[in-house]
Amino acid sequence: MTDYTLGELAQKLGATFEGDAAAVIVGVAALEAAGEGMLTYAESGKYRGQVEASGAAAIIVGADFPATAGKNLLRVERPKPAFVAAMELFRPARAVIGIHPTAVIADDAQIGEGVGIGPLVVVDSGAAIGAGSRIRAGAYIGPNVSVGEACDIGPNVSLMDDTRVGNRCILHPGVVIGADGYGYYWDSDHHHKIPQLGNVVVEDDVEIGANTCIDRATLGETRIGRGSKFDNLVQVGHNNQIGEHVILVSQVGIAGSSKLGKGVVAAGQVGIADHVTIGDGVQIGGQGGVNTDIEPGEKVWGSPAKPMAREMREIAAVGKLPELLRSFRQQQRELDALRDRIAALEDKPAK
Amino acid sequence: MTDYTLGELAQKLGATFEGDAAAVIVGVAALEAAGEGMLTYAESGKYRGQVEASGAAAIIVGADFPATAGKNLLRVERPKPAFVAAMELFRPARAVIGIHPTAVIADDAQIGEGVGIGPLVVVDSGAAIGAGSRIRAGAYIGPNVSVGEACDIGPNVSLMDDTRVGNRCILHPGVVIGADGYGYYWDSDHHHKIPQLGNVVVEDDVEIGANTCIDRATLGETRIGRGSKFDNLVQVGHNNQIGEHVILVSQVGIAGSSKLGKGVVAAGQVGIADHVTIGDGVQIGGQGGVNTDIEPGEKVWGSPAKPMAREMREIAAVGKLPELLRSFRQQQRELDALRDRIAALEDKPAK
Amino acid sequence: MTDYTLGELAQKLGATFEGDAAAVIVGVAALEAAGEGMLTYAESGKYRGQVEASGAAAIIVGADFPATAGKNLLRVERPKPAFVAAMELFRPARAVIGIHPTAVIADDAQIGEGVGIGPLVVVDSGAAIGAGSRIRAGAYIGPNVSVGEACDIGPNVSLMDDTRVGNRCILHPGVVIGADGYGYYWDSDHHHKIPQLGNVVVEDDVEIGANTCIDRATLGETRIGRGSKFDNLVQVGHNNQIGEHVILVSQVGIAGSSKLGKGVVAAGQVGIADHVTIGDGVQIGGQGGVNTDIEPGEKVWGSPAKPMAREMREIAAVGKLPELLRSFRQQQRELDALRDRIAALEDKPAK
Repeated sequence: MTDYTLGELAQKLGATFEGDAAAVIVGVAALEAAGEGMLTYAESGKYRGQVEASGAAAIIVGADFPATAGKNLLRVERPKPAFVAAMELFRPARAVIGIHPTAVIADDAQIGEGVGIGPLVVVDSGAAIGAGSRIRAGAYIGPNVSVGEACDIGPNVSLMDDTRVGNRCILHPGVVIGADGYGYYWDSDHHHKIPQLGNVVVEDDVEIGANTCIDRATLGETRIGRGSKFDNLVQVGHNNQIGEHVILVSQVGIAGSSKLGKGVVAAGQVGIADHVTIGDGVQIGGQGGVNTDIEPGEKVWGSPAKPMAREMREIAAVGKLPELLRSFRQQQRELDALRDRIAALEDKPAK
Repeated sequence: MTDYTLGELAQKLGATFEGDAAAVIVGVAALEAAGEGMLTYAESGKYRGQVEASGAAAIIVGADFPATAGKNLLRVERPKPAFVAAMELFRPARAVIGIHPTAVIADDAQIGEGVGIGPLVVVDSGAAIGAGSRIRAGAYIGPNVSVGEACDIGPNVSLMDDTRVGNRCILHPGVVIGADGYGYYWDSDHHHKIPQLGNVVVEDDVEIGANTCIDRATLGETRIGRGSKFDNLVQVGHNNQIGEHVILVSQVGIAGSSKLGKGVVAAGQVGIADHVTIGDGVQIGGQGGVNTDIEPGEKVWGSPAKPMAREMREIAAVGKLPELLRSFRQQQRELDALRDRIAALEDKPAK
Repeated sequence: MTDYTLGELAQKLGATFEGDAAAVIVGVAALEAAGEGMLTYAESGKYRGQVEASGAAAIIVGADFPATAGKNLLRVERPKPAFVAAMELFRPARAVIGIHPTAVIADDAQIGEGVGIGPLVVVDSGAAIGAGSRIRAGAYIGPNVSVGEACDIGPNVSLMDDTRVGNRCILHPGVVIGADGYGYYWDSDHHHKIPQLGNVVVEDDVEIGANTCIDRATLGETRIGRGSKFDNLVQVGHNNQIGEHVILVSQVGIAGSSKLGKGVVAAGQVGIADHVTIGDGVQIGGQGGVNTDIEPGEKVWGSPAKPMAREMREIAAVGKLPELLRSFRQQQRELDALRDRIAALEDKPAK
């Protein structure tokens, strides 16, 4: 980590600044926590009060943020991306780790240039690690696995036979890719295992959260599209085809042989059945359960999942149901009373 | 992997064949993907069009599949099991791995004949590994654990003290068996941990998915019945008694001290409370939540779970609820109108 | 494990005893399973029949439990805590493991007195392990991580950079603490990763179940309060602030930046959204989904979660809904019939 002056930072972030160009910035912090020497940001003018009260050394703000006396401001078009760029400047440098002597690397494994391999890593026969990638302590890289360039493979990750990981992928600790898909048929008195002969292909720029599992295909491949990001403890079953830039939040489960289009977003704990097709850009609300195809662009929620607006209407309606039941019984009594009155009228002898 | 001629395959699969007995088969593939040299299968006559269009070298079909000119067909009674048998023929042979010099094996551990132990495995004091089993890289076999014969224990698995695993079990990467059950009592100002002194017994022919956790019993044992198959990221709490041939799909959670009968099927993300009894053959739909006993053979769904037919009727009814609310208000207005008309009739002076 | 006489046990547990002070107790077991030489307990007089039928060597009972001829009884005020104390006496002693020669420990790591480090553990640069703690086989202790005194860190655990664990914490196998939080912003055509620069702080006396994941903060810290107990496969996202003595049962997921008060209990598979505040003592029923703030002391259930009593009323009401729909259609027919009768009355010519 290096320190920067406000002037240097303004240049690096393409910002104009108001205040003391020589002020030294030593780190980044959230607006409510930023103290001496720290850089922070305010998303909009809504945070003006907090900016005025802040002890931060400098604050990234939007072009239309009101001038604030006595504060060092860095003005940019979009404060959040600029702050993220600043976070990247202050991120601790990745240690160069070389190849640790306790790593067990097969003779026929291919290790690219500048690869770092931590202690007690196993790289099995026929595996290949691309240039600049880092494999952390205790990870297992199975037979014929390929890992692309500039990847970061966390501790205790298990990549099973024939898994292919693209470039610039991040796999967090405990990730398992390429374990057998879950497939059996019932053979008179027991479940007979169906061999799982396919593999998993993870395209470029994918990030996979801790302890997430992606199963190999029965035949062919389970595929994770470019730029997709999975959170922790996610389950992706065999033969799923996950599109590009898909977001799977923590504890989502996808059964098998399903297809998720580009940019699908599944919120936490969503379940998706097997053999369904989820169109591009579909959004699925938390804990939703999807067991049918969903058209592109739809927002759905509930279990079983319905269009979001419909689900919310039904939730509201269920909230009124106990009262409805009471009102219905009341109405039945009114109806009975009217019936009696009508009968009385009908019986009234015509004079 | 070996290649086979069609004639050889027919013999191995007990199939009659139509076509070229000398055709060479080099692998297996799904019907839509099978090309040159590949064997595939068609479940029924429904796939006739695909069979005709297929470039597969040979196709396994049922006895009643229509004759198809120019195709090499292998006729059997049940195409799927025959194809699975073919998959087994083409499955890559398990490498003989011996005992890797970096494995750490306690002096008093018992290692059976033909056991393979991968690099950086730990086999702790008093543990026993049965003949022909394979322990993969980075797995931890704790004190007094016993693993039966012909098991496959994946990388980074943790088997804790006194766990007993039967014969022919498959444990996928990251599985944890025998961690402490979750038990405390409230002791005036803190949760007091209840020691977990029992263990876990896994019977023969059980398969356990990646990162699945099975907790040791508080006292006595947590037991997983013969032939049961668990998917990834499943949770089985302390003292559960899981019957034979039970299917727990991904992300199912079972609290503790519950009893699942033979052949129970719990679909993805099902939750089962503690101290309940689920009868033989019960099926529980995805995301279902079970908090009561279930009679043998029932199919249930929903949270809390109800008989499947009832749950589906209720889901349908909720779908009509917003309209019902509107209709009810309309009916109330009609009722009010009728009341007025009756009052008018009652007030009408008798002439 | 040592054996005790009933007299010795009575003294250690502060119990009075009835029976043979010289009887030898060799272990503990549940009431239904306790045989020769075993100590067990009965929570209340309700279990009198089982106590009479039991072959246990001795039974812990409450002060008001009826005298039972021919049984060795240990009388205490609260039987369960006394039995737990007895379980602790019979718990196998923790082996002293020293520092295994295959462990990889950075030169600048600080290892406290009496620390046990198992085989193939990695302790990275700048890490510190407090006195009397035990790190089991295959665990990874990352750079600048600190682990307090008397902790038990399970096999294949991954503690990432800068994680801080308090004293007397238990981390079960496969736990991941300090992996990156899940944060991106959409940058025209891809998800741009937001660096995760914060850390995780776990206070004293926390227990964390197998394969549970706790993410580092984006900035600042994710904090787990003193005495909290998490079950297996739990997800705690970045920047959450979890209070003291919080119970998170298996497969609970908490998104990010949420705040859980002291003594919150979330049952199995509960999901909690980001940026919500859950008050002290709140209880959330199994599979509940919380997406709003909850006031202290409330009990909620359902998805989305509602006050428990309301949710139960709504569940009951939904159960009556199919019948209500039928009754409603019937009532509509009655209403139509009455309308006709009124019309007939109105049309009746006045005589």
